[in-house]
Amino acid sequence: MYSQLKTRVYQANLLLPKYNLVKFTWGNVSEIDRENSVIGIKPSGVEYEDLTPQDIVIVDLETGGVVEGNLKPSSDTKTHLELYRRFEDVGGIVHTHSPWATIFSQMGEEIPALGTTHADYFYGSIPVTRPMTSNEIEADYEENTGKVIVETFEKLSYKDIPSVLVHSHGPFSWGKDANNAVHNAVVLEEVAFMAWHSYTKKNNLQNMQQELLDKHYLRKHGEKSYYGQK
Amino acid sequence: MYSQLKTRVYQANLLLPKYNLVKFTWGNVSEIDRENSVIGIKPSGVEYEDLTPQDIVIVDLETGGVVEGNLKPSSDTKTHLELYRRFEDVGGIVHTHSPWATIFSQMGEEIPALGTTHADYFYGSIPVTRPMTSNEIEADYEENTGKVIVETFEKLSYKDIPSVLVHSHGPFSWGKDANNAVHNAVVLEEVAFMAWHSYTKKNNLQNMQQELLDKHYLRKHGEKSYYGQK
Amino acid sequence: MYSQLKTRVYQANLLLPKYNLVKFTWGNVSEIDRENSVIGIKPSGVEYEDLTPQDIVIVDLETGGVVEGNLKPSSDTKTHLELYRRFEDVGGIVHTHSPWATIFSQMGEEIPALGTTHADYFYGSIPVTRPMTSNEIEADYEENTGKVIVETFEKLSYKDIPSVLVHSHGPFSWGKDANNAVHNAVVLEEVAFMAWHSYTKKNNLQNMQQELLDKHYLRKHGEKSYYGQK
Amino acid sequence: MYSQLKTRVYQANLLLPKYNLVKFTWGNVSEIDRENSVIGIKPSGVEYEDLTPQDIVIVDLETGGVVEGNLKPSSDTKTHLELYRRFEDVGGIVHTHSPWATIFSQMGEEIPALGTTHADYFYGSIPVTRPMTSNEIEADYEENTGKVIVETFEKLSYKDIPSVLVHSHGPFSWGKDANNAVHNAVVLEEVAFMAWHSYTKKNNLQNMQQELLDKHYLRKHGEKSYYGQK
Repeated sequence: MYSQLKTRVYQANLLLPKYNLVKFTWGNVSEIDRENSVIGIKPSGVEYEDLTPQDIVIVDLETGGVVEGNLKPSSDTKTHLELYRRFEDVGGIVHTHSPWATIFSQMGEEIPALGTTHADYFYGSIPVTRPMTSNEIEADYEENTGKVIVETFEKLSYKDIPSVLVHSHGPFSWGKDANNAVHNAVVLEEVAFMAWHSYTKKNNLQNMQQELLDKHYLRKHGEKSYYGQK
Repeated sequence: MYSQLKTRVYQANLLLPKYNLVKFTWGNVSEIDRENSVIGIKPSGVEYEDLTPQDIVIVDLETGGVVEGNLKPSSDTKTHLELYRRFEDVGGIVHTHSPWATIFSQMGEEIPALGTTHADYFYGSIPVTRPMTSNEIEADYEENTGKVIVETFEKLSYKDIPSVLVHSHGPFSWGKDANNAVHNAVVLEEVAFMAWHSYTKKNNLQNMQQELLDKHYLRKHGEKSYYGQK
Repeated sequence: MYSQLKTRVYQANLLLPKYNLVKFTWGNVSEIDRENSVIGIKPSGVEYEDLTPQDIVIVDLETGGVVEGNLKPSSDTKTHLELYRRFEDVGGIVHTHSPWATIFSQMGEEIPALGTTHADYFYGSIPVTRPMTSNEIEADYEENTGKVIVETFEKLSYKDIPSVLVHSHGPFSWGKDANNAVHNAVVLEEVAFMAWHSYTKKNNLQNMQQELLDKHYLRKHGEKSYYGQK
Repeated sequence: MYSQLKTRVYQANLLLPKYNLVKFTWGNVSEIDRENSVIGIKPSGVEYEDLTPQDIVIVDLETGGVVEGNLKPSSDTKTHLELYRRFEDVGGIVHTHSPWATIFSQMGEEIPALGTTHADYFYGSIPVTRPMTSNEIEADYEENTGKVIVETFEKLSYKDIPSVLVHSHGPFSWGKDANNAVHNAVVLEEVAFMAWHSYTKKNNLQNMQQELLDKHYLRKHGEKSYYGQK
C-alpha cells in the first residue's frame, strides 16, 4: 500500500544530494496523505545511494506509530508530525543541514529580504526560532522542536514564508508536496548564501523596498499572478 | 519560421545551466532579428532540461505581441524589448540571478574595475541602477526596469560596459548576439566574485590604474586590437 | 598477506578525492591490525589515480619498519604510529590538508561547537595543538607531531572528539576503522566551513547550549542512542 | 618538427580547465627546448576544447618570431620569453587568471607563508610586483611585464618561490617543465584560498615559524629530501 506516496517521497529525498543540500544521511523529506492521515518519511540513517521506495516508512499522523515499513523512521519524525498537525495546508516537509541556512541557524539570525530572488519565494524575512529551554530539550526534544517552530509562526504566515531556521540547528522547509518542499529548500540555501555575503560586506544594509517585495511575491503567488505558463 | 533564430536562442539559454549562472528557471536569453523587428526569447517558467528550440517565443519588437509560439514569453520580455529599442547595436540580452552579481545588486553597489580580468571586457565600473519608485514598480514594472537601465547609461557607453546591476534584483548583460551576451554574463559573475573578495579584505582598495584599464580593454576591443586570431 | 587490510586502506584512501578532501597526494589514510601489531598505510607521494591495493605498505606498530610492500610508506607514518600507540581504541587514522580545517590550523584556533551538525559527531570544541618547539621540529619531527597531538588530549577524550588541528599544518582525524576516520574528516571539514562563516559574520558568537550539545551527541553516541537502524 | 614539445605543451594546457584554473581562453602554458632555443606556447584566443597539439606555436627564444605554426601565439608570449631568458633553470611557464591568486594580485598584496601546505612548495611569501609605470604599460607592455617580474626576484630565489602575482593582473607560475609549472599554479591557487580566509578572519596573523617553513620545504626540496619515492 501507499506505493505512490512512497515513490514520491523517495524521489524527493533523492533531490537532496542532487542539489547538494546534504552530506551522508543528514536530511529527510516527508509527504502527507491527509485522506488517510499518514505520512511517508525517510528511514533513519540510511544512505541516499542505498535508499529504495520500499524503504520509505509510513507513519500515523496522530499516534506516530509505524503503519507500514521494516525500518525505523527518521529521528526527526515527531518534528514533521507536529508541523503537519498544526500547518494544515502543508503537504510536504524537508529538513537538512544545508550549510548556508545552517550558518544563519548557528548565528541565531533571521535571513532578511534583500532582493527579488528572496521575494519570488518568501514574503518577508525567514525567521529563526528562539533557543529551546532545558526542559524542552530533555523531554520529547523532537516534538518540542516542532512546537517551537509553530510558536515562531504565531504572527507569521507559514504559507507565505515556507521555511524556518531552528536555532543552533538547521532549516526546515515545506510546500504543497514533498517535491515543492525541496524546491523551497534549494531557494532557501541560495538566498542564505547571497544574504550572508551582502551583509558581511555591507553590515548596515537595509531590507529591500516593501513595494518591490510585494511586486515580486505577488506576481508569482498572488491571485493576480502572471509568472509561468497557465 | 525563424528556426535559425530559435535555435540560436535555445542554445544560448542552455549555456546558463552549463556555466552555473542559474538555478531552476531563473534566467532568460533573447536575440533580436533587426531586419524583421522581432526577438526570440525563452518562454516563462520552463525548466532548461525540458526546453526545445520550438519553445522559443517570437515577439514583435514594437508591440510586444507574440508573433509565433504556443507558450507565454518570459515575464521579463518587456525589459528585453525596451533595451533592444534603446540600445540599437545590441544583438542579444541575458538576465540571470547569478549569485555574485546579484550580491552586488542587493548591496546596491557598482563593481569597480580592479584588475585586468575586468578590463579585458568592461571599460570601467559596472553600474547599479537607482532604486525604482513606487510608481515605476506598480505600473508596468518590467518595462520600467528597462527604462531605469537605459537611464543608468545616459552618461556611459553600453557598448563598452555590456552589463548592469538592477538594484535589489540582479544583472542584465548584452552583446552582439545571444551567445556573446551569455559570455559577458559569465565574465561579470567571475569579476563580481573577485571584486567582492578583494574589497572585503581590503576595504580601502582603489580602482586599477587608468593606463592599465586602457591597455587591456583596447588591446581586445579597440581599433588596434591584437588579441586572438584574425 | 594482509590483503583485506590493504583493500580496506586502499578503499578509504580513495574516499579522500571523492569527498574533495585532497589535491594531488596531500593526504593519507591508515588502519591498524591490533592482533598483529601492524598498520596498513598509503605509500608516500603516489597519486590516488595510480594507487592499487598492493601499493599499501604494512608497517610494524612498534619499530616502524616495513613488514610488507615495495614502496616507502607515507612521510607522516611516524605520526600515525604514535597515535595508534597512545590512543588504544583508535582503528583508523587520516591526515589531509582539507582547506577549511587547514584554515583553522593556520589561524591556530580551535573550532567551537556552534550547532547540532558539530554536536552529532564532536562532543565539544575541536582543539588545536600548541606550536612545536624548534627542537621538536628539528629532531624526529613526524613522531613529535604525534606526541604534541597526544599532549593536546591530556584533558580531553579522543573518543568523543575524533579530530585535531595541528598548528600551522592541518587536521588529523580518527575512528573505529579507516572508513570511519575518513567519515569524521568529512564532517570536520563541513563543520569548519560553517564555523568560519558563522564567526566571521558574528564575532561575539557564543558556543551552543550545553544541553543541546549533550542531547545531539548522546542520541547518536551514548548508551541510550536512538539514531539510525539497529 | 617539435612534435614532442607540442604534445607536452598541449597536454599541460588541458590541465588548466581540468583544475578549474581558467574560464574560456584565459590562460596559457609554454615549455622551452633550450637546446634549440625555442618555446612551444598556446595560440592566442583558442578555446581549450578546440585545441590540438598541432595548434601549439613554436617561437624563437631570442627574436620572438614564429618558427612553426599557423596561428598567432598567445598575446602574453613576450612575457614568457623574457622569463625564460632571465630565469635560466625554468623549463615551463603558466599564466592564468585563477580567481584566488588574482584576488591577491588585485589587492596588490603578497601571499604570506601561513602553513605547511605553502611551505611544501614555496620557501617564503609569494611576492607581488610593483605597479607598472605609464611608460612600461604603453610601450612593449607584455615584455615589460616580464621585466617587472624579474625585478621582483632581484633579492629572491625564483627556484624556491616558483610563482609571482602581477599587480592588478594575475599570477605567473613556473617549474622544471610545463606540467610542473601547472602543478605549482594549482598549489598557488589553493594556498591563496587558505591565506585569504586565514587573514580575513584573523587580520593580525603572523607568518608561520621559520623552523617549520625550513622543515617542510627542505624535506621535499633540499639535498636531504625524503618525501615521495626515489
